[in-house]
Amino acid sequence: MIGDGILHPDRLLPAEPHLRRIARGLYEGLRDLPIVSPHGHTDPAWFATDAAFGNAAELLIIPDHYVLRMLRSQGVEYDALGVPRRDGGPVADARAVWRSFAAQYHLFAGTPSALWIDHAMSAVLDCPGRLTPDNADALFDHINARLAEPGFRPRALLDRFNVEVIATTEGALDPLHHHAALPPEWRPRVRTTYRPDALTDPEAPEFRADLLTLGRLTDCDVADWAGMIEAHRRRRAHFRAHGATATDHGTPSALTADLAPAECQRLLTGALAGTLTPPEAEQFRAQLLTEMAGLSVEDGMVMQLHAGPCRNTDRRMMAQRGANMGADIPQRTDWVGGLAALLNRYGDAPGFRLIAFTLDETTYARELAPLAGYWPCLLIGPPWWFHDSPEGIRRYLDRVVETAGYANLAGFNDDTRALLSIPARHDVWRREVAGHLSRLVSEHRLDMPEAARIGAELSCHAARKAYRL
Amino acid sequence: MIGDGILHPDRLLPAEPHLRRIARGLYEGLRDLPIVSPHGHTDPAWFATDAAFGNAAELLIIPDHYVLRMLRSQGVEYDALGVPRRDGGPVADARAVWRSFAAQYHLFAGTPSALWIDHAMSAVLDCPGRLTPDNADALFDHINARLAEPGFRPRALLDRFNVEVIATTEGALDPLHHHAALPPEWRPRVRTTYRPDALTDPEAPEFRADLLTLGRLTDCDVADWAGMIEAHRRRRAHFRAHGATATDHGTPSALTADLAPAECQRLLTGALAGTLTPPEAEQFRAQLLTEMAGLSVEDGMVMQLHAGPCRNTDRRMMAQRGANMGADIPQRTDWVGGLAALLNRYGDAPGFRLIAFTLDETTYARELAPLAGYWPCLLIGPPWWFHDSPEGIRRYLDRVVETAGYANLAGFNDDTRALLSIPARHDVWRREVAGHLSRLVSEHRLDMPEAARIGAELSCHAARKAYRL
Amino acid sequence: MIGDGILHPDRLLPAEPHLRRIARGLYEGLRDLPIVSPHGHTDPAWFATDAAFGNAAELLIIPDHYVLRMLRSQGVEYDALGVPRRDGGPVADARAVWRSFAAQYHLFAGTPSALWIDHAMSAVLDCPGRLTPDNADALFDHINARLAEPGFRPRALLDRFNVEVIATTEGALDPLHHHAALPPEWRPRVRTTYRPDALTDPEAPEFRADLLTLGRLTDCDVADWAGMIEAHRRRRAHFRAHGATATDHGTPSALTADLAPAECQRLLTGALAGTLTPPEAEQFRAQLLTEMAGLSVEDGMVMQLHAGPCRNTDRRMMAQRGANMGADIPQRTDWVGGLAALLNRYGDAPGFRLIAFTLDETTYARELAPLAGYWPCLLIGPPWWFHDSPEGIRRYLDRVVETAGYANLAGFNDDTRALLSIPARHDVWRREVAGHLSRLVSEHRLDMPEAARIGAELSCHAARKAYRL
Repeated sequence: MIGDGILHPDRLLPAEPHLRRIARGLYEGLRDLPIVSPHGHTDPAWFATDAAFGNAAELLIIPDHYVLRMLRSQGVEYDALGVPRRDGGPVADARAVWRSFAAQYHLFAGTPSALWIDHAMSAVLDCPGRLTPDNADALFDHINARLAEPGFRPRALLDRFNVEVIATTEGALDPLHHHAALPPEWRPRVRTTYRPDALTDPEAPEFRADLLTLGRLTDCDVADWAGMIEAHRRRRAHFRAHGATATDHGTPSALTADLAPAECQRLLTGALAGTLTPPEAEQFRAQLLTEMAGLSVEDGMVMQLHAGPCRNTDRRMMAQRGANMGADIPQRTDWVGGLAALLNRYGDAPGFRLIAFTLDETTYARELAPLAGYWPCLLIGPPWWFHDSPEGIRRYLDRVVETAGYANLAGFNDDTRALLSIPARHDVWRREVAGHLSRLVSEHRLDMPEAARIGAELSCHAARKAYRL
Repeated sequence: MIGDGILHPDRLLPAEPHLRRIARGLYEGLRDLPIVSPHGHTDPAWFATDAAFGNAAELLIIPDHYVLRMLRSQGVEYDALGVPRRDGGPVADARAVWRSFAAQYHLFAGTPSALWIDHAMSAVLDCPGRLTPDNADALFDHINARLAEPGFRPRALLDRFNVEVIATTEGALDPLHHHAALPPEWRPRVRTTYRPDALTDPEAPEFRADLLTLGRLTDCDVADWAGMIEAHRRRRAHFRAHGATATDHGTPSALTADLAPAECQRLLTGALAGTLTPPEAEQFRAQLLTEMAGLSVEDGMVMQLHAGPCRNTDRRMMAQRGANMGADIPQRTDWVGGLAALLNRYGDAPGFRLIAFTLDETTYARELAPLAGYWPCLLIGPPWWFHDSPEGIRRYLDRVVETAGYANLAGFNDDTRALLSIPARHDVWRREVAGHLSRLVSEHRLDMPEAARIGAELSCHAARKAYRL
Repeated sequence: MIGDGILHPDRLLPAEPHLRRIARGLYEGLRDLPIVSPHGHTDPAWFATDAAFGNAAELLIIPDHYVLRMLRSQGVEYDALGVPRRDGGPVADARAVWRSFAAQYHLFAGTPSALWIDHAMSAVLDCPGRLTPDNADALFDHINARLAEPGFRPRALLDRFNVEVIATTEGALDPLHHHAALPPEWRPRVRTTYRPDALTDPEAPEFRADLLTLGRLTDCDVADWAGMIEAHRRRRAHFRAHGATATDHGTPSALTADLAPAECQRLLTGALAGTLTPPEAEQFRAQLLTEMAGLSVEDGMVMQLHAGPCRNTDRRMMAQRGANMGADIPQRTDWVGGLAALLNRYGDAPGFRLIAFTLDETTYARELAPLAGYWPCLLIGPPWWFHDSPEGIRRYLDRVVETAGYANLAGFNDDTRALLSIPARHDVWRREVAGHLSRLVSEHRLDMPEAARIGAELSCHAARKAYRL
């Protein structure tokens, strides 16, 4: 991938010498900016306890659905990758997992996973060479030794990575004990995010139980529509007290609604009774998105909408090992029709901010850029999930900027649970931003000072502003 | 954007030196070709009265929905941009508008608006530097002084821009007084276009009144389907007498129909009674497109179809200030299913010509190029609206040419009401055409004479031929 | 197109000198690899009889729907192109067809047809210059003379082209006489493929008659669902005895189903009675795809799915001359929802292999790469039909690799009935693969040995493995 395990200093920058010179100059101004990570899935327990990580496989392989899915696609079973089974059956041990991974590492050629893993192993973990089947055991031991050092504990890693602030994501019922346990000086750096999906989706398995729990936690009557909204209002305040500046909503479609109160109540009653049809369930979710926008108008929390994945498409896998096993697949998303109700209700509301993330790249130029270039509330989130990659970032910037401009972009998110990949992901973004801007400079569409300003915005400042950090 | 207010002579051309040399050579052969502008929205009153324009804000900012929407998206209210209100309430004066624009001009970095405005200010209006907050007042006065000069009156500008012919677009009921008032030598240069949308859409607010007016103007019984078609036939002849060679149709979808006469009559009766359901209204519009194709087969007028925008998506804005305020957003378009009825009826009719414009770039390679590469009647219109931009043009040419070839393209349209941007828009197109062709030459897919021939076709001759000018 | 009729040795390789140097080095390692052609539409009679081809027009023009459709789109009637009429009416003779083609050959500038035809005429047929109206007669005579030579008979051409193996495609009822008539040493090189579309689509005109024929051929009761499946099982074995390693399925959508036996029987009974509604017919096709997957799990035949075209969109053309006249147009395809039933049933079945081909490029990154990067059975087929072109291949590789990796791609298919274009098509693919890889090498995302390995896989070895040849 990068040759002899060494990260080439010009990796990802454009090949053409004139462009590369410009891009390198721009990148040098971006490389050392602090990392602002306003959305992701790291575990707050890491930062609360600051305990050492276990081993290379537990940290780098078993929780990484990008890695698991690729190995599975080429015939490596999840048992051999140490992925826990719901039936508690035996799975491979860490060293065996690592060997399986090393034996198949060539599969990642040309993928962002290779960029992230090579970077983590070389720049963070100081591995002497690129992973091969031959050095698998030696590197496993090397990495494990590193992870036992104080300098590789979670908080030390945030310092080492120059992370100014990182947001985790918790379900609305989460007690936030880990955030509460953070030392005071770490609290502004490790923040939570309010993610109430289990409470806004009547098709979620524990919907009724969870909503009743929310009612108890907030002392609200959640069988009443206004009571349920009040419960969210109070719970959001609880999250804000633990640093949250944002909420996050994951939905299969971007549909929003603006229904009359009686209809809302009818849907809620049906949701609690478990009698909603699928279209009614979608209306419930759609209305809740608009309600969440209304609460954001009140309390100033930035609303994130991650729309588009078809979740858990492999029923056998879901039964055997649960969610987030790599079987979530993007689908088409209608942002124009979907957001119409919400935007007509709150699109101009002072201070309201909505950040939209899509898995349907066809909507970049056709829908999201035109919407974000019109509505004051709307910013476009960075390329997400399968599209957070060199080519994905190029397509994103090529398609959104001309209509949305740079000021309607939300900067970068790493959106990861893979702590060691965070610097690599921000680095890939910054290199691609530099490459993108170098093309505009070389075509005399931007001058260098303006390109440098925009590069710094996209790499760091825009995220701070977008998330009110 | 372009550095020191000066337009770089190589702007937009490929960065790689070998490509740039080829592209520059090609561009030099295209730069000075006359401008053929067969579709746009300039005001025919300008050319009829030849009165001087008022001031920089009225000409460059207030009517430009690209500019308005971007400023609004970053919190500048339309009142501050001088956009008239339906309630007659006060809005900012021209100088204040200009200052607001200058203060936010950085927002346009990387957008086509910056290319067009920089070009207009530098190459047309001879501004001594690029617009900044500091020189805003000075440039406002500079531009206004220029606009008062005889050389900046509308007809002089057409001469200065080397506009061979320009078509405006009028509703079917327009009396065409301005075109009638043109001096005889200007009539072949300033032509009208027949745009009957208000009469073909039963959901248009004044549909019934307008259709009855059409009946009176043409002495036809528009309550009878054949009578209504005859009314269009006569009105089209009226437009042809004022230079029209084309019609234009703007619809949310590309749906066409080929219904039995009794069903047509049923729809018309319902449309006049205001009783059509939305699907019936769509059938009415769909059938009218096919009828318009039939009239084009008869009278030789070139049929343009601009399909795809979801219009007036912001209800509050529509109520406050009306249409064309930046809230029209593209949506997915089904060209294959949509055009099936029309093409099966008239796709082979001798002399029939249909030019299709899309806002859904995914249809370039998947639908429009395959359709245009088969049906004799069909040409693909240039990238439109949000896609009339450097990256948009690149995507267009990369996606349509391999299947449609160059001969099935309609050349370029500027499609603008912003008179001063016309040379810039054609120049951007020609530079991108040169860049596109330089890539094919450098990859030995075209030789230089063929590239030069194709470049001239795309820049000028193809539009003349496509529109029968 | 390529200058003086000579194929430039660097054609299609990237223009930038550094990239071109890398790409040229990679291409040199790919150029002479054997051609593996696991899917296409050449006529097995050619290889069975090894008779000389007739003339240039019959071989190069009349059967090539890419060529026909482009000429038609610019007003050349199919009669003038020698395309047979169903009414037996007269059409132009071969020399007149060739002259019409030569007169319009400029239309193909920038299209893959030009690359294929220039290559065939220059590298295969040794024409002294590029086709022009002036040399049309001379080249017609030149080509016809070549075709009369022993070295231009079908088998000699396969040798000359270095074709290691080629698969034809036959309907399920085909007696396979031509394959049976092959000399023994040619049998492993010329294989058939099982394509039962006429038997799996109840809307096919001869569905009932064909299914009854299948029943007679296999001695099965095809009015019984299990009997019908058994008939396919037996017929597939017959095809395997003639070298088939794969089946192929062409459907308008990617929909699959997993219905209960009683529902299957109900659909079959209705299909034979001709009483199915269109949605029921789609369910029948959808269920048959899943059944075919089940048979592949049993017998190891690789399942190909070509989904997406809207067939025979020109009803007049269909009536006059039949299918495959250029009027098939791609449409949107939903792979995620479509394949859900099949994948949940057989996605993990040991040894099952499904190769998916799309005409909807928006599904590359959004759907097919995520699916193929998860399911063990699924490979992504190469760019197909309108997308088998330089830009189409670039889009494909840029969009699929990052998520699917290289190992989940099926290599290349030429998918053609145009025998003389086979080397050109593989050559275009190999040049584009080299160009793609050169970009990754130059951006330090791959090293040269890895790029060379991947290039050879994509050019030759992957197809062998994917199709079990």
